[in-house]
Amino acid sequence: MKNILLTTQYDGTDFCGWQCQHECRTVQETLQNAISEVTGEEITLYGCSRTDAGVHAAKHVSNFKTNSNIPPERFSYALNVLLPQDVKVLCSEETHMDFNARFKAKSKKYRYCIQYGPAPQALWNRFAYYSPKVPDIAKMQQAADAFVGEHDFRGFQASGGTVKSTVRRIISCQVVQMAPNVVAVEIEGTGFLYNMVRIIAGTLLFVGIGKIPAESMAEIIASGERKRAGKTLSPCGLMLMEVNY
Amino acid sequence: MKNILLTTQYDGTDFCGWQCQHECRTVQETLQNAISEVTGEEITLYGCSRTDAGVHAAKHVSNFKTNSNIPPERFSYALNVLLPQDVKVLCSEETHMDFNARFKAKSKKYRYCIQYGPAPQALWNRFAYYSPKVPDIAKMQQAADAFVGEHDFRGFQASGGTVKSTVRRIISCQVVQMAPNVVAVEIEGTGFLYNMVRIIAGTLLFVGIGKIPAESMAEIIASGERKRAGKTLSPCGLMLMEVNY
Repeated sequence: MKNILLTTQYDGTDFCGWQCQHECRTVQETLQNAISEVTGEEITLYGCSRTDAGVHAAKHVSNFKTNSNIPPERFSYALNVLLPQDVKVLCSEETHMDFNARFKAKSKKYRYCIQYGPAPQALWNRFAYYSPKVPDIAKMQQAADAFVGEHDFRGFQASGGTVKSTVRRIISCQVVQMAPNVVAVEIEGTGFLYNMVRIIAGTLLFVGIGKIPAESMAEIIASGERKRAGKTLSPCGLMLMEVNY
Repeated sequence: MKNILLTTQYDGTDFCGWQCQHECRTVQETLQNAISEVTGEEITLYGCSRTDAGVHAAKHVSNFKTNSNIPPERFSYALNVLLPQDVKVLCSEETHMDFNARFKAKSKKYRYCIQYGPAPQALWNRFAYYSPKVPDIAKMQQAADAFVGEHDFRGFQASGGTVKSTVRRIISCQVVQMAPNVVAVEIEGTGFLYNMVRIIAGTLLFVGIGKIPAESMAEIIASGERKRAGKTLSPCGLMLMEVNY
């Protein structure tokens, strides 16, 4: 038996997220069905992250165990023939037997894109949240710096979270001009609470458009109060960029 | 009566092209319906280019005449509320009465994107043609230089073209690395024959992957033989970038 690691990319717009759900098109099920067709086996695919409906991934990592004698690096070719246009395997390789994509990640990097200006750009509609107001990017970066380090992020999670600890470590948080009238929040951390990146992006946007002062960001984080942060931005702007093991 | 100029952007994937067709979703009809709803008038929209099904536009220009007293610059807001996500008006303004977007263009600029490598990237599936082979970009640029200037491009049009003259002037033709494993052909000219950009892109790709020598490009153009050029690449990679009047 072999343990196969897949690096996949998907446009999440037309998926109900990564994880299998009843009567709903998901990335996990789409990949599992293709793998089963190629191997003739019933397999379970373990993913690094259960992205929500509409969220994208540039390099999502998952793994499955198989008795197939297909050479590991050939799985990508065989699967891509069967897969739809909006999810593709960038790379397939053998990994050690105790590797599990879900539990072994050391850090994850996300990007959240916001387009702005008097009109939304149709070419960004699948990949960015739209703000009619033009944000001040330098102020967004000033506030973004306050997220770096180890903090209790209980004010930056969706209500109903069930995790034991809400302390997470953010390695970096950069605000980058991606394209004309498109700004991105790029954030890397050892782990994230539910909706945390989308709430951070919404908070930084509020800073950018003058609803929250950049200087008060450290205090808002320390307060732990969800209502002092910005709103949860829509899933379409979010992309999982990479996972480090 | 006023003449209103619209600058629009669209993702052409889910449209049957720009021009109205019976029982088919087109950009022109989608825009005309929204304009009629806003003005209460039956209007005709004149477009700078009748892009094919699947072709995109970053800045498409069109115009219509109206007796509406909506301020010209407010049309973009009013229309964007009604328009679907994949077509939006970037800007609306008043122009002189004899302006016609279809007939007044001095030059047009297109971009054709090609992604390459062992696996297609799902995030580029709507916007790039996929080549498994990796092209030599320097060779592509060398061949691209041969297109610049005034030439008879009869070997670079789809069969069945009915134009009188097949002479066109190319102002510039650049091969640009757009993103990792994505190359773009950016071409500006005073006019283009039917499918001309898609055939030029296919010819430059053939040069890049070694099927056509870069040195023979001037001779291939001069020969006027369609069969010596490369294949017509798929519409999804093509984008109208701008139109100059």
